[in-house]
Amino acid sequence: MKYIGRVPRVRVLIRPKEGILDPQGKAVARALPALGFPAVDNVHVGRLVELDVEDVSQVEAMCERLLANTLIEDYEVALVSPDGEHQSQTAGPDAPRR
Amino acid sequence: MKYIGRVPRVRVLIRPKEGILDPQGKAVARALPALGFPAVDNVHVGRLVELDVEDVSQVEAMCERLLANTLIEDYEVALVSPDGEHQSQTAGPDAPRR
Repeated sequence: MKYIGRVPRVRVLIRPKEGILDPQGKAVARALPALGFPAVDNVHVGRLVELDVEDVSQVEAMCERLLANTLIEDYEVALVSPDGEHQSQTAGPDAPRR
Repeated sequence: MKYIGRVPRVRVLIRPKEGILDPQGKAVARALPALGFPAVDNVHVGRLVELDVEDVSQVEAMCERLLANTLIEDYEVALVSPDGEHQSQTAGPDAPRR
Protein backbone atom coordinates (compact mmCIF):
# COMPACT_ATOMS: atom_id res chain seq x y z
CA MET A 1 0.00 0.00 0.00
CA LYS A 2 1.09 3.55 -0.73
CA TYR A 3 0.45 6.57 1.43
CA ILE A 4 -0.45 10.05 0.30
CA GLY A 5 1.02 12.76 2.50
CA ARG A 6 3.02 11.86 5.56
CA VAL A 7 5.46 9.02 5.03
CA PRO A 8 4.76 6.13 7.42
CA ARG A 9 7.32 5.25 10.07
CA VAL A 10 7.98 1.57 10.48
CA ARG A 11 9.60 -0.33 13.32
CA VAL A 12 11.23 -3.69 12.74
CA LEU A 13 12.07 -5.91 15.68
CA ILE A 14 14.64 -8.59 14.92
CA ARG A 15 15.25 -11.42 17.35
CA PRO A 16 17.31 -14.60 17.40
CA LYS A 17 15.04 -17.50 16.44
CA GLU A 18 13.93 -19.78 19.20
CA GLY A 19 16.61 -22.39 19.79
CA ILE A 20 19.32 -20.28 18.21
CA LEU A 21 22.19 -19.22 20.45
CA ASP A 22 21.71 -15.75 21.91
CA PRO A 23 25.04 -14.90 23.51
CA GLN A 24 24.12 -11.27 24.17
CA GLY A 25 20.95 -12.34 25.90
CA LYS A 26 22.90 -14.83 27.98
CA ALA A 27 25.43 -12.16 28.90
CA VAL A 28 22.72 -9.76 30.03
CA ALA A 29 20.93 -12.51 31.96
CA ARG A 30 24.15 -13.25 33.77
CA ALA A 31 25.09 -9.64 34.41
CA LEU A 32 21.78 -8.39 35.82
CA PRO A 33 21.76 -10.51 38.99
CA ALA A 34 25.36 -9.49 39.64
CA LEU A 35 24.21 -5.86 39.51
CA GLY A 36 21.45 -6.40 42.03
CA PHE A 37 18.56 -7.39 39.77
CA PRO A 38 17.99 -11.04 40.61
CA ALA A 39 14.44 -11.58 39.35
CA VAL A 40 14.98 -11.67 35.61
CA ASP A 41 14.52 -14.53 33.20
CA ASN A 42 14.19 -15.32 29.53
CA VAL A 43 16.40 -12.46 28.35
CA HIS A 44 16.85 -11.94 24.62
CA VAL A 45 18.77 -9.28 22.76
CA GLY A 46 17.91 -8.38 19.22
CA ARG A 47 17.98 -5.45 16.86
CA LEU A 48 15.68 -2.54 16.30
CA VAL A 49 15.43 -0.89 12.89
CA GLU A 50 13.24 2.15 12.39
CA LEU A 51 12.73 3.85 9.08
CA ASP A 52 10.40 6.08 7.11
CA VAL A 53 9.17 4.22 4.07
CA GLU A 54 6.61 5.22 1.49
CA ASP A 55 5.56 1.73 0.56
CA VAL A 56 5.07 -0.26 3.76
CA SER A 57 4.42 -3.44 1.82
CA GLN A 58 8.10 -3.47 0.85
CA VAL A 59 9.32 -3.81 4.43
CA GLU A 60 8.96 -7.58 4.49
CA ALA A 61 11.18 -7.83 1.40
CA MET A 62 13.69 -5.46 3.02
CA CYS A 63 13.82 -7.75 6.05
CA GLU A 64 14.29 -10.84 3.92
CA ARG A 65 17.02 -9.29 1.83
CA LEU A 66 18.95 -7.07 4.21
CA LEU A 67 17.64 -6.30 7.67
CA ALA A 68 17.34 -9.79 9.12
CA ASN A 69 19.27 -12.98 8.65
CA THR A 70 16.23 -15.20 8.32
CA LEU A 71 18.24 -18.37 8.85
CA ILE A 72 18.79 -17.44 12.46
CA GLU A 73 16.51 -14.47 13.09
CA ASP A 74 12.81 -13.72 13.19
CA TYR A 75 11.45 -10.30 12.48
CA GLU A 76 8.31 -8.41 13.28
CA VAL A 77 7.13 -5.27 11.53
CA ALA A 78 5.06 -2.60 13.25
CA LEU A 79 3.74 0.68 11.97
CA VAL A 80 4.34 3.57 14.36
CA SER A 81 2.36 6.76 14.27
CA PRO A 82 4.18 10.10 14.00
CA ASP A 83 4.40 10.62 17.78
CA GLY A 84 6.15 7.28 18.17
CA GLU A 85 3.16 5.43 19.58
CA HIS A 86 2.49 1.93 18.45
CA GLN A 87 -0.30 1.64 15.92
CA SER A 88 -0.58 -1.74 14.32
CA GLN A 89 1.57 -4.76 14.04
CA THR A 90 2.21 -7.55 11.63
CA ALA A 91 4.58 -10.40 12.23
CA GLY A 92 6.98 -11.75 9.67
CA PRO A 93 6.04 -14.96 7.91
CA ASP A 94 7.58 -17.24 10.48
CA ALA A 95 7.87 -15.02 13.52
CA PRO A 96 6.53 -16.74 16.61
CA ARG A 97 5.56 -14.41 19.43
CA ARG A 98 7.88 -14.62 22.40
CA MET B 1 5.23 -2.53 41.30
CA LYS B 2 5.23 -6.28 41.88
CA TYR B 3 3.07 -8.79 40.11
CA ILE B 4 1.41 -11.83 41.57
CA GLY B 5 1.21 -14.77 39.19
CA ARG B 6 2.52 -14.44 35.69
CA VAL B 7 5.83 -12.61 35.41
CA PRO B 8 5.53 -9.54 33.16
CA ARG B 9 7.45 -9.46 29.90
CA VAL B 10 9.18 -6.19 29.17
CA ARG B 11 10.53 -4.83 25.91
CA VAL B 12 13.29 -2.24 25.91
CA LEU B 13 14.03 -0.29 22.73
CA ILE B 14 17.45 1.33 22.68
CA ARG B 15 18.33 3.89 20.04
CA PRO B 16 21.24 6.20 19.31
CA LYS B 17 20.40 9.64 20.70
CA GLU B 18 19.45 12.30 18.23
CA GLY B 19 22.60 13.87 16.83
CA ILE B 20 24.77 10.89 17.76
CA LEU B 21 26.41 9.06 14.90
CA ASP B 22 24.44 6.01 13.78
CA PRO B 23 26.75 4.17 11.39
CA GLN B 24 24.52 1.09 11.16
CA GLY B 25 21.54 3.25 10.28
CA LYS B 26 23.62 5.03 7.65
CA ALA B 27 24.77 1.72 6.21
CA VAL B 28 21.22 0.42 5.95
CA ALA B 29 20.01 3.70 4.44
CA ARG B 30 22.69 3.40 1.80
CA ALA B 31 22.17 -0.29 1.10
CA LEU B 32 18.40 -0.28 0.67
CA PRO B 33 18.27 1.87 -2.49
CA ALA B 34 21.01 -0.27 -4.00
CA LEU B 35 18.78 -3.31 -3.40
CA GLY B 36 15.82 -1.76 -5.14
CA PHE B 37 14.12 0.04 -2.24
CA PRO B 38 14.62 3.70 -3.07
CA ALA B 39 11.92 5.35 -0.96
CA VAL B 40 13.42 5.07 2.52
CA ASP B 41 14.57 7.81 4.83
CA ASN B 42 15.50 8.48 8.41
CA VAL B 43 16.85 5.00 9.11
CA HIS B 44 18.06 4.18 12.60
CA VAL B 45 19.37 0.95 14.01
CA GLY B 46 19.23 0.22 17.70
CA ARG B 47 18.92 -2.67 20.08
CA LEU B 48 16.00 -4.64 21.38
CA VAL B 49 16.10 -6.27 24.79
CA GLU B 50 13.23 -8.40 25.99
CA LEU B 51 13.07 -9.98 29.39
CA ASP B 52 10.73 -11.39 32.00
CA VAL B 53 11.04 -9.37 35.16
CA GLU B 54 9.06 -9.58 38.38
CA ASP B 55 9.51 -5.97 39.38
CA VAL B 56 8.90 -3.80 36.32
CA SER B 57 9.88 -0.67 38.23
CA GLN B 58 13.48 -1.93 38.19
CA VAL B 59 13.77 -1.86 34.41
CA GLU B 60 14.69 1.81 34.28
CA ALA B 61 17.58 1.16 36.65
CA MET B 62 18.64 -1.83 34.55
CA CYS B 63 18.74 0.42 31.49
CA GLU B 64 20.75 3.06 33.27
CA ARG B 65 23.25 0.59 34.67
CA LEU B 66 23.63 -2.03 31.96
CA LEU B 67 21.28 -2.16 28.99
CA ALA B 68 21.81 1.30 27.52
CA ASN B 69 24.74 3.62 27.32
CA THR B 70 22.83 6.72 28.34
CA LEU B 71 25.57 9.04 27.14
CA ILE B 72 24.82 8.15 23.57
CA GLU B 73 21.60 6.15 23.69
CA ASP B 74 17.96 6.70 24.59
CA TYR B 75 15.76 3.91 25.79
CA GLU B 76 12.08 3.23 25.92
CA VAL B 77 10.41 0.58 28.06
CA ALA B 78 7.19 -1.16 27.08
CA LEU B 79 5.22 -3.87 28.80
CA VAL B 80 4.18 -6.68 26.48
CA SER B 81 1.37 -9.05 27.25
CA PRO B 82 2.00 -12.80 27.20
CA ASP B 83 1.02 -13.24 23.56
CA GLY B 84 3.60 -10.66 22.53
CA GLU B 85 1.16 -7.87 21.81
CA HIS B 86 1.99 -4.39 22.89
CA GLN B 87 0.23 -3.28 26.04
CA SER B 88 1.52 -0.07 27.50
CA GLN B 89 4.56 2.04 27.09
CA THR B 90 6.70 4.36 29.13
CA ALA B 91 9.63 6.29 27.84
CA GLY B 92 12.92 6.64 29.63
CA PRO B 93 13.60 9.92 31.43
CA ASP B 94 15.08 11.66 28.44
CA ALA B 95 13.83 9.61 25.54
CA PRO B 96 12.37 11.80 22.82
CA ARG B 97 9.93 10.08 20.49
CA ARG B 98 11.28 9.64 16.99
